[in-house]
Amino acid sequence: MKAVVFDKDNTLKFVEDYEKPVPKKGEALIRVTMAGICNTDYEITKGYMGYVGILGHEAVGIVEEINDEDKSLLGKRVVSEISYGCKDPNCEWCGKKLYRHCPNRHTLGIWQKDGCMAEYFTMPLEVLFEVPENVPTEQAVFVEPLAAACEITEQLHIKPFEKVVVLGDGKLGLITALTLNAQNYDVLLVGKHQNKLDIAKNQGVETCLLSDFKVEKKYDVVVEATGSASGFETAMALTKPRGVLVLKSTVATGKELNLAPIVIDEITVLGSRCGQFGAALRLLKSGKVDFTPLISAIYPMNKSIEAFEKNKERDVLKVLIDFTK
Amino acid sequence: MKAVVFDKDNTLKFVEDYEKPVPKKGEALIRVTMAGICNTDYEITKGYMGYVGILGHEAVGIVEEINDEDKSLLGKRVVSEISYGCKDPNCEWCGKKLYRHCPNRHTLGIWQKDGCMAEYFTMPLEVLFEVPENVPTEQAVFVEPLAAACEITEQLHIKPFEKVVVLGDGKLGLITALTLNAQNYDVLLVGKHQNKLDIAKNQGVETCLLSDFKVEKKYDVVVEATGSASGFETAMALTKPRGVLVLKSTVATGKELNLAPIVIDEITVLGSRCGQFGAALRLLKSGKVDFTPLISAIYPMNKSIEAFEKNKERDVLKVLIDFTK
Repeated sequence: MKAVVFDKDNTLKFVEDYEKPVPKKGEALIRVTMAGICNTDYEITKGYMGYVGILGHEAVGIVEEINDEDKSLLGKRVVSEISYGCKDPNCEWCGKKLYRHCPNRHTLGIWQKDGCMAEYFTMPLEVLFEVPENVPTEQAVFVEPLAAACEITEQLHIKPFEKVVVLGDGKLGLITALTLNAQNYDVLLVGKHQNKLDIAKNQGVETCLLSDFKVEKKYDVVVEATGSASGFETAMALTKPRGVLVLKSTVATGKELNLAPIVIDEITVLGSRCGQFGAALRLLKSGKVDFTPLISAIYPMNKSIEAFEKNKERDVLKVLIDFTK
Repeated sequence: MKAVVFDKDNTLKFVEDYEKPVPKKGEALIRVTMAGICNTDYEITKGYMGYVGILGHEAVGIVEEINDEDKSLLGKRVVSEISYGCKDPNCEWCGKKLYRHCPNRHTLGIWQKDGCMAEYFTMPLEVLFEVPENVPTEQAVFVEPLAAACEITEQLHIKPFEKVVVLGDGKLGLITALTLNAQNYDVLLVGKHQNKLDIAKNQGVETCLLSDFKVEKKYDVVVEATGSASGFETAMALTKPRGVLVLKSTVATGKELNLAPIVIDEITVLGSRCGQFGAALRLLKSGKVDFTPLISAIYPMNKSIEAFEKNKERDVLKVLIDFTK
């Protein structure tokens, strides 16, 4: 089958003869319709996690085969959570349904598991979710980063009167701000690009250019979505004493950081990664968020390498790959 | 009066002619008996906070004068919390009795307020606490760092079955481990010095030399008390997914830090500073902790500069200054 592969020579390739996967017991085979490029994919092509194999963890597809008695998802349009656990009944994490923290987890296109930038991929049935009929595929392909935004409110109780600021107007910041706003939190998005801020503004999010923004310790919750050391420092300077700084980016800082403000102001830094899909799909179904303005380009699968090149360009937000073409 | 002063020339001095303070309305004048040198004092002598004035925020003394109708503390042996707030009824922090986060706070010997390494200091009555009769002055002088250790359980609900590890066998680590152990938490102290670890071990704390210690992600709560970048990195590597890393040290790291483990394992980093004295005094009164083995030396006040020199020595724990001599 055709697939986007990061291989042992540290090369990104579009190959035509990758072995088609066979679903194990309890798994489904999914024919991919559309996949999204995430910054993590880009980081992997620079060596992150030492991963080699098919890339990709954001996809929509059709279930074509099921190796299980329960065939209810056969023929359905689905999305897949990115990790599954060891399923050992004694596993602390799997027992709490926190598959994404199981030390023996498999993560699509990131860890011990081929990804979804291919004609086919397999995943266990318990992490597959049918896409509601009214949600277009171009929206459904955003479910993984949307779930990562919903993860914040899984981990943290943000009270209705608390002030939230999201720093950074890239994909991560925009999706986070749109998601929190759609749930009626009091959220302000701060970034450097008026054109990107406008995407959120058009959907009712309060926005501010960084150059017009006054840095004051007055936010109960600050979401760091710039991925830069200076962004992290600004985030510390915005967090109220005893407030929460949500750290969303896995990019290494490569800069000396003075963590003293965390101690002096007794700040909580909350690491936040990917989330569950239930709440994300409810939000997509409700139509309260529209991610289509984030789509910068859609490439057919045989132009996947060009899609990755496009993804590196300044001002580009989401690049999608259409695996039906 | 005699006082230990860090002056505008960035020089540490013992002076004999510092003006004796006069208590304002609602304040007491305290004659100092004993004061402790804290690492923060040492940091101040290197420029931390840009503070100039009398040093010191750890002291025991006798109330000699009160500028208030309530004279109940007159003649009593007291300790003082280190900060008082603006007391504006509209202040969010003072309203919650979180004086130590009031933006207009005064902090003994650190911020906008002369410290307690002098024959006399003043503080408002509401932050003074009588020392229980059965607590010797040499123990009572530890109440501030002890309260800082108690601060952890003010901020964080540590469950009885959770595993806690304290990294670092300096003053901060020892006091934290002793305090948590005295409250029946399941605590392990890890450090590099057998002689220091033994102080905790002799009071029932489980200890382990760093060289014999296996770094595994298995602790629910990790207290970073080394103040070093490598200590912070080890702390991240010890924290379970979704666990809490308590950051106690305000020392700048001066090293590039990769914060990715915080995101990947969804770790909470909890900044933790000084605390309230109530719980700390109860613990001292109970006799469940004994800090006298931490006392490395006691100097008379006119040898204060030598006391600061002694404090810099390797293997030295607490250095006290006796202001009655």
